[in-house]
Amino acid sequence: MHDIIIIGGGPAGLTAGLYAARGKKDTLIIEKGIEGGQITETTGIENYPGIDQIDGAELGKKIADQAKKFGAKIVMDEVESVDLTGEVKKIKCYVDDYEAKAVIIATGANPRQIGAPGEDKYKGRGVSYCSLCDAAFYEGEDVYVVGGGDSAVQEAIFITNFAKKVYIIHRRDELRASKILQEKAFNNDKIDFIWNSEVVEIKGDKVVNELVLKNNQTGEERSIKSDDPFGIFVFIGYVPNTDIYKDQINISEDHYIITDEEMKTNVTGVFAAGDIRKKTVRQIVNAAGDGAIASINAQKYIDEAEGNLYEGFKK
Amino acid sequence: MHDIIIIGGGPAGLTAGLYAARGKKDTLIIEKGIEGGQITETTGIENYPGIDQIDGAELGKKIADQAKKFGAKIVMDEVESVDLTGEVKKIKCYVDDYEAKAVIIATGANPRQIGAPGEDKYKGRGVSYCSLCDAAFYEGEDVYVVGGGDSAVQEAIFITNFAKKVYIIHRRDELRASKILQEKAFNNDKIDFIWNSEVVEIKGDKVVNELVLKNNQTGEERSIKSDDPFGIFVFIGYVPNTDIYKDQINISEDHYIITDEEMKTNVTGVFAAGDIRKKTVRQIVNAAGDGAIASINAQKYIDEAEGNLYEGFKK
Repeated sequence: MHDIIIIGGGPAGLTAGLYAARGKKDTLIIEKGIEGGQITETTGIENYPGIDQIDGAELGKKIADQAKKFGAKIVMDEVESVDLTGEVKKIKCYVDDYEAKAVIIATGANPRQIGAPGEDKYKGRGVSYCSLCDAAFYEGEDVYVVGGGDSAVQEAIFITNFAKKVYIIHRRDELRASKILQEKAFNNDKIDFIWNSEVVEIKGDKVVNELVLKNNQTGEERSIKSDDPFGIFVFIGYVPNTDIYKDQINISEDHYIITDEEMKTNVTGVFAAGDIRKKTVRQIVNAAGDGAIASINAQKYIDEAEGNLYEGFKK
Repeated sequence: MHDIIIIGGGPAGLTAGLYAARGKKDTLIIEKGIEGGQITETTGIENYPGIDQIDGAELGKKIADQAKKFGAKIVMDEVESVDLTGEVKKIKCYVDDYEAKAVIIATGANPRQIGAPGEDKYKGRGVSYCSLCDAAFYEGEDVYVVGGGDSAVQEAIFITNFAKKVYIIHRRDELRASKILQEKAFNNDKIDFIWNSEVVEIKGDKVVNELVLKNNQTGEERSIKSDDPFGIFVFIGYVPNTDIYKDQINISEDHYIITDEEMKTNVTGVFAAGDIRKKTVRQIVNAAGDGAIASINAQKYIDEAEGNLYEGFKK
């Protein structure tokens, strides 16, 4: 049995692992894909405090190396089902099964994708899901924003601080965003709208240079091409992966794990950290900070439990 | 008038500045001492995610440089009094006076010091106020812990993961810590107690090698000397500097600023971030994370206010 198992090897999970291992707990991080998680798809991060400029993959590797240096183990495996309500937390994965005294869930949330051909290929090379991360790279350029809700409109307004022009591509003929945001967008000279339209293909060379749009009223397709680089920012929601937890842990209506400020879920000994949590600000430094808090509290939980609260832990 | 004024130039304030300036807000950071704040006194930080090993002074400088790169201004000045309740926030300093639309307070909290000669001199060279930061450096050595409350005893137990022996120096003949913690400490073979004693002097060469203790019952002084390096960890509380805010902002009984998870205080347009907040985990990465959240919400506040909520902002 491990002391602490961390599910997910992004900034939150890796930081939790670094703190747990440095606190001399037997620490296992289960990551299904690549060390660093979602951030490995981002290049040129320039708002992680203390590091002037870094690619996500490198930042992920750095935190992973730190965690390993203190003794955290990282396995490549994917969780199939969990039994977290008991004193011993059981995790069934595709390759192996694991047990721990405490569990930290840090599997993040992925931005919902359009699903158009070319989208994956040009991620980080014209296609972005984070204006705080990437808007600054489109200073003086055109930007296309996909979506019509609060976040799409808010981000579009934010991007006008950098871009020459921002086009909001929306599949309906009116916005879902709040009135005040709509008004601000309509009054902003830099923002234009492309209504009743969907992106059906993203093309490019090294970076994006063409968008194919389809008018969903007329069925007509048209192409937007440019020799200058431009950006396409997608804000159509996030998808946290909480299906396997939802029968045991309290989940919000929009599928995020509910925790308190100590990163505690409703289940004793189970913590959540990073983008999988119900919260408003989703930045790398905050995911890492969540991981530190979850880890410190998981360690405290084990120490207190071993101080007699839970007989089962005593050997 | 500035958009955002940040009071305090530690990891929380500098990160808030980095985010605010990158968000194209006119950003001023007021720091009374040195860029980086309290962390500049720490060397060899090895638990800041993404940076294997760094001195606090260097980390502070890196975040400050990042903030400046995006246009944040940092002035050396000290706040004398504030008027934060109005729409325009007014800050009177010793050198100059400043105004802003939103304010982020990030002046931190300092560990309470013993006040013994030598304490300042050997900070970071034997004298520590943070076991998570420094306990790992005393693997196999002796450590002296000063204090008798929950945190002193909890930290002493944590330090036994590394140290050969931990001596708790307490000025009374019993602990203030909770019963369960006391029991754990008394049952721990690695922990011993030095009762009714106060540290009256800390001596050393390059690092600490001598402690002078005074028995406050007998008045007797004795010296603890060693050729091996040893550590002295002080856990006698923190002192947040909130006196100038306490008539305008909600402060906890122990003098911290009360915020919600969005870093909002009870005063519209006033945010707090980092160690000055009422919270449990006080790590550098969490201070930085707080700064990002406070900054994003301060920017939102200004944007919404300029979208008509507050007439006074319209020019």
